[in-house]
Amino acid sequence: MALLDNSTSEIINPDTYFQTHTPSRTLIEDEIRVKEFVNKHQEAGRKIVLVTSGGTTVPLENNTVRFIDNFSAGTRGATSAEYPFIISVIWILIFMHRQFSLQPYSRHYTHSTNCFLDFMELKSDGSIGVNSKYASKMKFVLEKYQEFKKNETLLLLNFVTVTDYLFLLRSVTKIMSVLKENAMYYLAAAVSDFFIPAQKMSQHKIHSDGGLTLTMDQVPKFLKPMVTNWVPGGFIVSFKLETDPALLVDKSRLALMRYGHQIVIANLLTTRKCEVVLITRDSEFQIKLTEDEIAEDKEIESKIIPELVKRHYEWIRNASHTGL
Amino acid sequence: MALLDNSTSEIINPDTYFQTHTPSRTLIEDEIRVKEFVNKHQEAGRKIVLVTSGGTTVPLENNTVRFIDNFSAGTRGATSAEYPFIISVIWILIFMHRQFSLQPYSRHYTHSTNCFLDFMELKSDGSIGVNSKYASKMKFVLEKYQEFKKNETLLLLNFVTVTDYLFLLRSVTKIMSVLKENAMYYLAAAVSDFFIPAQKMSQHKIHSDGGLTLTMDQVPKFLKPMVTNWVPGGFIVSFKLETDPALLVDKSRLALMRYGHQIVIANLLTTRKCEVVLITRDSEFQIKLTEDEIAEDKEIESKIIPELVKRHYEWIRNASHTGL
Repeated sequence: MALLDNSTSEIINPDTYFQTHTPSRTLIEDEIRVKEFVNKHQEAGRKIVLVTSGGTTVPLENNTVRFIDNFSAGTRGATSAEYPFIISVIWILIFMHRQFSLQPYSRHYTHSTNCFLDFMELKSDGSIGVNSKYASKMKFVLEKYQEFKKNETLLLLNFVTVTDYLFLLRSVTKIMSVLKENAMYYLAAAVSDFFIPAQKMSQHKIHSDGGLTLTMDQVPKFLKPMVTNWVPGGFIVSFKLETDPALLVDKSRLALMRYGHQIVIANLLTTRKCEVVLITRDSEFQIKLTEDEIAEDKEIESKIIPELVKRHYEWIRNASHTGL
Repeated sequence: MALLDNSTSEIINPDTYFQTHTPSRTLIEDEIRVKEFVNKHQEAGRKIVLVTSGGTTVPLENNTVRFIDNFSAGTRGATSAEYPFIISVIWILIFMHRQFSLQPYSRHYTHSTNCFLDFMELKSDGSIGVNSKYASKMKFVLEKYQEFKKNETLLLLNFVTVTDYLFLLRSVTKIMSVLKENAMYYLAAAVSDFFIPAQKMSQHKIHSDGGLTLTMDQVPKFLKPMVTNWVPGGFIVSFKLETDPALLVDKSRLALMRYGHQIVIANLLTTRKCEVVLITRDSEFQIKLTEDEIAEDKEIESKIIPELVKRHYEWIRNASHTGL
């Protein structure tokens, strides 16, 4: 019996997907928050980058006990999200992330081998405080974190399932489209490729008396309607993660041709933290950490984000020639 | 086309599973730690409870990008793990949990709606400390946490895949079997029911040009060899989580009959935090939080663990009559 069979299931279009699925209960509330955020910062002349981060799930049951997930702690997204602020106060952020995945700033203290309590200590006067070994870095991170909380320059939104994600992405990008060229869309989330349509899903927990065969449909390629309808002409950067180096560049360029967006950041599972390739329709640009930079814990996102901001500027300049 | 087909795949036995799969690279090191822990505390006359917690994953690819997961943050396990210590210093713990799932003590500050940094504040003297609103509870939790670190009365082990879990469970329980009646096995982990055998797995990331059909085998029922061979006669408590109330008690009793262990804790997905049923071969015992208890945030595990410790004591007494 074949393990994989890529020929049997139908491919539905995005409109049908939205018509046959239900958004998360928080969608309307999230839309209101995004509108307020966008309006306020548009008036202040700021630019907004949308960063999506973490994996989406595909429930196998309506009362979900089991689901398919993507390998992603949200490291790329959460790390990237700290750099726009560093480049310029003009760039602020909507961070749309998988629930409980890494977030900017707090990422320095979660999912580590240390338990959070290991950073704390009981002091001689009986009070509780931060262990002096960690206090200086934590103070720096906390100051940054409190700054954006005070200025309300970071909006956090979260999702769990691929359906939550697609509805939220559509809403957020449609709202952000009023920003025109003053926006960037940085799609680092690891979105599921396959799903079980709601109407075909098991109502209760699947029982385990014997084996299991799951037939899944392909998740519609949302980049096409995003480029064409949701934020027409937006500056959109997507990611391509592969494990097979032989396929990486060709598949990335194919995605650019198919969907018509600006940049694909191609990366391999094993080297993604020190090497990526920025691929456009007519160029390839490698970004790599040197051995010295790796040794001093430099993050590759500190090189990716400035390069994208530079290209965003060039894109606006070129677009103005062509009358965008 | 059938979504589910429970009749086509073979069911392999546990021995075959272990022969055809590879344990995690940390297994040997973990075994050494468990042996040292068990020997030390056995000499000190302590009792050890093994708590398993969190969900296991089933990779869909050898270079894993996608996997099937179970809905579990590890709440039941991590919460339960704090109560044996409260009952008596005699009871100590091996906590075997899914990587990054909740852990005892630190659970109070992770996976919450608050970011960890929200608990911290910059003080007027420029130093960093704990916000006074949270300091008193955090101090209490930190004291407990530091106490078991100092006394080395909590051993943490972790797993990710169902294969990691099964190898680790076999090793830990075999080592713990020297404790005879001075042990309890509290299996709260949400173990996958289905897996893709390693030899049938895709080497690289599955491509998404079309739909996908996955054929999975049933994970062998490890409770049978655990009861019979790994810890013969051990005091074993398993969990049964269902979404359909009509099936809950019958399926739990069937598991007891099939595997021959002591207790199944039956719970429903929607009510599991305030109601469970302890099922033995000849009894059913409901444990429920009252409305007052729910209002004051009492945890149901604070009632489950004392009941199990009581039953463990009765079990020893009865076993001694029958010459265990």
